[in-house]
Amino acid sequence: MAKEAKTLDDLFHDTLKDIYYAEKKILATLPKMAKAAQSEELRAAFEKHQSETEEQIGRLEQVFAAIDKKPQGKTCDAIVGITDEGAEIMKEYKGSPALDAGLLAAAQAVEHYEISRYGTLIAWAEELGVEHAVSLLEETLEEEKATDEALTEIAKSAINQQAEAA
Amino acid sequence: MAKEAKTLDDLFHDTLKDIYYAEKKILATLPKMAKAAQSEELRAAFEKHQSETEEQIGRLEQVFAAIDKKPQGKTCDAIVGITDEGAEIMKEYKGSPALDAGLLAAAQAVEHYEISRYGTLIAWAEELGVEHAVSLLEETLEEEKATDEALTEIAKSAINQQAEAA
Repeated sequence: MAKEAKTLDDLFHDTLKDIYYAEKKILATLPKMAKAAQSEELRAAFEKHQSETEEQIGRLEQVFAAIDKKPQGKTCDAIVGITDEGAEIMKEYKGSPALDAGLLAAAQAVEHYEISRYGTLIAWAEELGVEHAVSLLEETLEEEKATDEALTEIAKSAINQQAEAA
Repeated sequence: MAKEAKTLDDLFHDTLKDIYYAEKKILATLPKMAKAAQSEELRAAFEKHQSETEEQIGRLEQVFAAIDKKPQGKTCDAIVGITDEGAEIMKEYKGSPALDAGLLAAAQAVEHYEISRYGTLIAWAEELGVEHAVSLLEETLEEEKATDEALTEIAKSAINQQAEAA
């Protein structure tokens, strides 16, 4: 057997590359979503999350350092699929009163993917005893949850009602 | 203008087609994940969720009926991406003590996608006043949340420790 069996360390490292790629993809996508948003409130939410995402990428680089690896991304098919759906919404609902509702749904799908990934990484970092990584990842997880809740609040407010009234 | 502006009704219908496709894809994937699982507990969790998924597909068909539409799927790039990542884990971690941890992570990414989609659909069904759809979708959302929590419990138990011990 030339190949060693992969371990939880490898899985942690692989998944870290996956979310690092995903965060960079999200950072590139958020300005497009902010530009497309019809309501000021939604645009502001996307702009705020853009700054947060920059910090989250910085935290991931610290997590790579905590396991003595260089920051490196690996194509994340999931986030590619999720953001492709968002791009489709922007195209198909351009000029529609339901556009913001669609953007919100796309953004919440992104948040939930991240919530799932960070939850998993935290559990593994705990198992592996990488304490510094745990606290960095927890900080980001809390931000992602807060973003998801903020988006839910925006969704429950005027936007859907506007879409329906049209 | 030959084309009418799309409304929230269209967005609800489009997203219903998206999750209908996604649930069918998940139904096709779960037996593969159950077969790959190393622990009995995880295999049982996948098998249980397979039966639930069959019922969830039936509920979606009732939601289509509630808006006078025929059940129809539309390729959901997000779930394709998420399940492709799961397939990659199954391949790369075959025979590895970390395989179950990877399967759990993939399954939780699926659950979070569904939680996000059902949350969105419920908000829209409320806005559109499709009460019967709201209750059907809420039933499924609760199942998805319970599945995610059950997976978290399994993840926190023996599996990660096994992976680490290897």
